[in-house]
Amino acid sequence: MRQVAIAGIGKTRFGALEGADIRSLAAEASRKCLENAGVSASQVEAFYLGNFAGPCFVGQNHLAPYIASEVGIVGVPATRFEAACASSGAAFFHAYTAVAAGIYDAVLVTGVEKMTSQPTPKVTEILASAGDLGGEIRAGATFPALFAMIARRHMHEFGTTREQLAAVAVKNHASGALNPDAHLRKKVTIEQALAGKPVADPLTVYDCSLVSDGAAAVLLMPLERARDAASKPVLIRGVAQTSDQVALDRKQSITWFPAVRAAGEKAYKMAGMTPAEVEFAELHDCFTIAEIVAVEDLGFAKKGEGGPYSAAGCTSLTGEKPVNTSGGLKSKGHPVGATGVAQLCDLALQIRGEAGERQVKRNNVGLAQNLGGSGATCVVTIVSGA
Amino acid sequence: MRQVAIAGIGKTRFGALEGADIRSLAAEASRKCLENAGVSASQVEAFYLGNFAGPCFVGQNHLAPYIASEVGIVGVPATRFEAACASSGAAFFHAYTAVAAGIYDAVLVTGVEKMTSQPTPKVTEILASAGDLGGEIRAGATFPALFAMIARRHMHEFGTTREQLAAVAVKNHASGALNPDAHLRKKVTIEQALAGKPVADPLTVYDCSLVSDGAAAVLLMPLERARDAASKPVLIRGVAQTSDQVALDRKQSITWFPAVRAAGEKAYKMAGMTPAEVEFAELHDCFTIAEIVAVEDLGFAKKGEGGPYSAAGCTSLTGEKPVNTSGGLKSKGHPVGATGVAQLCDLALQIRGEAGERQVKRNNVGLAQNLGGSGATCVVTIVSGA
Repeated sequence: MRQVAIAGIGKTRFGALEGADIRSLAAEASRKCLENAGVSASQVEAFYLGNFAGPCFVGQNHLAPYIASEVGIVGVPATRFEAACASSGAAFFHAYTAVAAGIYDAVLVTGVEKMTSQPTPKVTEILASAGDLGGEIRAGATFPALFAMIARRHMHEFGTTREQLAAVAVKNHASGALNPDAHLRKKVTIEQALAGKPVADPLTVYDCSLVSDGAAAVLLMPLERARDAASKPVLIRGVAQTSDQVALDRKQSITWFPAVRAAGEKAYKMAGMTPAEVEFAELHDCFTIAEIVAVEDLGFAKKGEGGPYSAAGCTSLTGEKPVNTSGGLKSKGHPVGATGVAQLCDLALQIRGEAGERQVKRNNVGLAQNLGGSGATCVVTIVSGA
Repeated sequence: MRQVAIAGIGKTRFGALEGADIRSLAAEASRKCLENAGVSASQVEAFYLGNFAGPCFVGQNHLAPYIASEVGIVGVPATRFEAACASSGAAFFHAYTAVAAGIYDAVLVTGVEKMTSQPTPKVTEILASAGDLGGEIRAGATFPALFAMIARRHMHEFGTTREQLAAVAVKNHASGALNPDAHLRKKVTIEQALAGKPVADPLTVYDCSLVSDGAAAVLLMPLERARDAASKPVLIRGVAQTSDQVALDRKQSITWFPAVRAAGEKAYKMAGMTPAEVEFAELHDCFTIAEIVAVEDLGFAKKGEGGPYSAAGCTSLTGEKPVNTSGGLKSKGHPVGATGVAQLCDLALQIRGEAGERQVKRNNVGLAQNLGGSGATCVVTIVSGA
């Protein structure tokens, strides 16, 4: 297997982007990425698109050639990957393996979602379709409700507090305020977060990620070719995709996710690294409790200690293990299909030293965790300077 | 790259299957496939799901782990691939490359669609979402209309006749009548086909494929391991996936598809074969004109001669190049996401000599062509006895 690097990155701003449709968003990120790498569309040998629910949000299926052809990529395989909120993580994972195996020398992986053209109840319904239709969805459980149950159980088992959840929100808002591409650039205080409008007890609006439009792209090349690219390459050290039951009630526990632990273990093994060697991370904070569970499942803190670890500031920009320096899904935004690839773009910015005001000092080894549903899909990626 | 074989096949019956939901259909085909190969679910190292529009047809997203976990496949990558009507062809293509590259030793590729739970206008609308939303769809062009334009132009340029289109329908119905798993097991005469209810002139209902429920699965393994499977392995000799513009009005011509020609050329080159060496084929007859165009684009007949070639009986069960011995999408049925993999199952049945009353004599080399949209995606696969 060859070493594979991220040779270019491209992102749109995240937000409620009224004038932009799904194709123009994805094309913008794709073009920026190719430009960043100094590679032309005609050199791209395959197009991997991560998109969760474009057909439901905007009515367009067959999105991969629809977008690829707009960017000038025709003739090559153009395929859409769907794995709920881990859609572009899954696209990335499959693209990585194809480049590592020597199938392609240049693969463009783009993630996109256009969500804000639908009214909120419809958005909630579409997001819920990533859960178990016949069981939990029919019972009326949307994702805030599912993660509220996870939070409640985590509180019961480990003494996690509302304040610890709120601390995650405060931290991610603080980082997102420094990110010019973030959806909601607004600092919040712990008092504000605690007093947020209830969504599903114990979660308030400040515990929930945003409904956003946006796109992100990375270009994958074998490391040796990526060294000739226009931007500094970022080496992929480990990557794994795993799966589990979709329905929460089929899981043996709801305070940890087997898919996350397994993806972490595989990625660490592949990278030959321990959690301690990861210097910073982008974790899938679809809800504040999800970041706390991920901090534990990935070995940054012991089981049950994710809450205190976060509340103590260990995961802040200046902490021992900065998490979500981009602002995370909470503040940067969560255009579902774009999130997995956007996390990788944000890791790359840190490793290149291009993260501006949110730049961390120990910036050589980063980890991204992209979660689908309530832990039914997980993709973990570890990257470093090349 | 390693040689890869189909080590097992599994299919549900195709049709309007009232009692079966999308998960039970996909699980049935998957289990039959594993049983056919004599491989357990725990041995499967990755799950590749082809599904076009489950979220639109039945409201369920995140289908890959939803289905995989039902079959007992957990922990491994489980991903949905979408490329319109070529969704499971795309899943198969990516799975093939992963096994060929040595990433996995056992990959289950399942295709599924549950279409008949929606009323016909809604089905038409969902199918149309594989076209260009902002252009041709907004203009009111559904797929029968798009292929009617292709047919009309083909008639204009090459003198193709209504009788030649009808001959494709008659042939595919005749073969499908012999297929116990086919949706519509009904012979039709050329007079009946010509007198069919108009859908989009010059196409009648007999020129259009069926709206069906169904699932199909293949298990891919390296050839050497497939030799130990419970069923006779089928060797994958060549496979390619290509893409093109989605909108018909962006294409330079509408009487041939660059994506089909390119996929064919790549697959022939990889297999080291010419069209003449292909003994039988499953072609994507979403409309009768599509089969005629494919017969030409894949080199079975010269450009413009697909109509006369078909009308002369060359593609019938007893002709020189039997096409759609399964009955094709026209008679076997077209559960969109299942079609690409179902074609491969039907090739395997012929190669194994298990095709019953529709068994062809020259049965060693078969080709499958799976088309997405009006030629925006194409997957061509060439298989043979191992």
